[in-house]
Amino acid sequence: MPTDTANSPGEFDLIERYFSRHKTTDLSEQNTAEGSINFLLGVGDDCALLSPPMLGDVLAITTDMLVESKHFFPNTNPEKLGHKSLAVNLSDLAAMGAKPIAFTLGLALPKLDETWLHSFANGIYALADSFNCKLIGGDTTSTAGPLTISITAFGDVNPRQALKRSNAIANDDIWVSNVVGDARLALGYLRGEWSLQEDVFKRAQLRMDKPEPRIKLGMALLEIANAAIDVSDGLLGDLRHILRASKLNAQVFIDEIPVSKELGNSSVELRRLCSLKGGDDYEICFTAPEFNRDAIAELSQSLGLPLTRIGKVLPAENGFGHIQLLDKDHQVLDPELTNRYLSSFDHFKNN
Amino acid sequence: MPTDTANSPGEFDLIERYFSRHKTTDLSEQNTAEGSINFLLGVGDDCALLSPPMLGDVLAITTDMLVESKHFFPNTNPEKLGHKSLAVNLSDLAAMGAKPIAFTLGLALPKLDETWLHSFANGIYALADSFNCKLIGGDTTSTAGPLTISITAFGDVNPRQALKRSNAIANDDIWVSNVVGDARLALGYLRGEWSLQEDVFKRAQLRMDKPEPRIKLGMALLEIANAAIDVSDGLLGDLRHILRASKLNAQVFIDEIPVSKELGNSSVELRRLCSLKGGDDYEICFTAPEFNRDAIAELSQSLGLPLTRIGKVLPAENGFGHIQLLDKDHQVLDPELTNRYLSSFDHFKNN
Repeated sequence: MPTDTANSPGEFDLIERYFSRHKTTDLSEQNTAEGSINFLLGVGDDCALLSPPMLGDVLAITTDMLVESKHFFPNTNPEKLGHKSLAVNLSDLAAMGAKPIAFTLGLALPKLDETWLHSFANGIYALADSFNCKLIGGDTTSTAGPLTISITAFGDVNPRQALKRSNAIANDDIWVSNVVGDARLALGYLRGEWSLQEDVFKRAQLRMDKPEPRIKLGMALLEIANAAIDVSDGLLGDLRHILRASKLNAQVFIDEIPVSKELGNSSVELRRLCSLKGGDDYEICFTAPEFNRDAIAELSQSLGLPLTRIGKVLPAENGFGHIQLLDKDHQVLDPELTNRYLSSFDHFKNN
Repeated sequence: MPTDTANSPGEFDLIERYFSRHKTTDLSEQNTAEGSINFLLGVGDDCALLSPPMLGDVLAITTDMLVESKHFFPNTNPEKLGHKSLAVNLSDLAAMGAKPIAFTLGLALPKLDETWLHSFANGIYALADSFNCKLIGGDTTSTAGPLTISITAFGDVNPRQALKRSNAIANDDIWVSNVVGDARLALGYLRGEWSLQEDVFKRAQLRMDKPEPRIKLGMALLEIANAAIDVSDGLLGDLRHILRASKLNAQVFIDEIPVSKELGNSSVELRRLCSLKGGDDYEICFTAPEFNRDAIAELSQSLGLPLTRIGKVLPAENGFGHIQLLDKDHQVLDPELTNRYLSSFDHFKNN
């Protein structure tokens, strides 16, 4: 079916109004101070034109699709949603160690709501501006279905340093940034899986709604770490992606995984399940050689961001992709619990 | 809401099965014969890594979102839909004169249908392979709404030659490739706006369902043409995008616009409206200096693709973006008809 030409001209004007703030002018004749990354042409032509990355670098490209009622609740605050939509993409760049450059935005809107668009754009731009990441193109359409957001983000990275999942090395330490599990804690409350005090919920909800992409960390890790992934589906599941890509195994000290004070005060069972299997925290899990422990401690200090060692990469043995779980006494956990924590099935949902 | 971890593992396996055929291995240590464009890392990491374009070139980037029931009919043949989803993006690259390199694919699926996915992937890959354009990343999710497809495509182009909309020059000839209006002819039949003989409809429908992105033409035009756009919303409306970006006006010989035999045999009114306002043909409308007429004739010959001169770019005068319509005797059309053909409102839909 041809593009619907019955859209009122007002619709296109409106989109233009809210998403052309970053509209780039033709800079092809100019040289920026940086001299390397130019936006030759932004929204408003058949294509955006993006000049090559820094000499020797490559473009890191990631794409994420967010669907209402699946990835976010209906009536989510649009400013937070704008932030999160871009944040999950920037988080993928961070997990590669890439510096954000630009992004494109696809929006399928169930209705045209100026107030909503204004807030959504504000949320996106506030985050984009903080990383000097430019909107260079996009597409908007109406839909009879749920709000659907599709973002493709571009970053700059040295390919020899990029934190590929396949780059882990046996005997690497396994680290995670900040704390994990809060997003799952908030989600469980919203789903009625457990009760929480209002202030505990509010703090956890902020982690779920407004994840901070760890760009500075990712870029600093290029010199220090081997492999990395962002925790979007759950720490153990995401770590397993690294292990499978690197054809290695691991052991994880599950009671040393950093959690918030709130989650730390919960039952052992709730803490473990939220921190091991909870998605949506967008912290970085990475592997690094033992000799970089001091450098990592210094980095943590300079970024003001906790970095905690939670395990060890092990060589392949009887296959790869296996994770051994150790408790607080560094004793191997009993098989039943291990299976429960490692299964991709989220038990909470079906209790 | 965190990513739904309740997806059965089978779902991810299935996506992997159908969309990892182009999965690229790590080529970072290799040099291709071309020596310039490498896919360092494809689907299966946090980001795809794309090496820089040819020396001196830039990346052309375009993104399109297609929603069922809005951009295509429900139950559209999935192979054709796969073709068309990528074709509309490649058409944007063609309109910039860019050589396709790669694309990312976002899919929001209302249900998991193996047969459908298999055919859809076949349609995409057949077209992608024909231009050596690689799938380097993507995201898939389920949706409670209509099937939604979001593709971002990447091409390589010399920024000084790129066929920007803003590059038209007064006195340029205006050209269009092949024939236009058939997609609108088929759409009108499907909507019950008019009747057509079965064979006429079938030929027109093929143009609507299986547009051919004019990549070779676009790349050849880099040396010959100034500005270009692909005809997706209607010839006059799309030409007006060029005129507004270039701050110029134009005259168009509306009875010299090339149409298929079928549309040529229709009433003057149907022919004019389909060819002037019909979208979805994905032919290329371009402007070029008069002294390149011979070169364009030769190009048409060598590509086996009709290229027809349909008008003239005029200097700005009392503003810009205005199009004067001339009939077969090159007489200015009466204002009422002119308004009808130039309005963005598609009269057909409301007859």
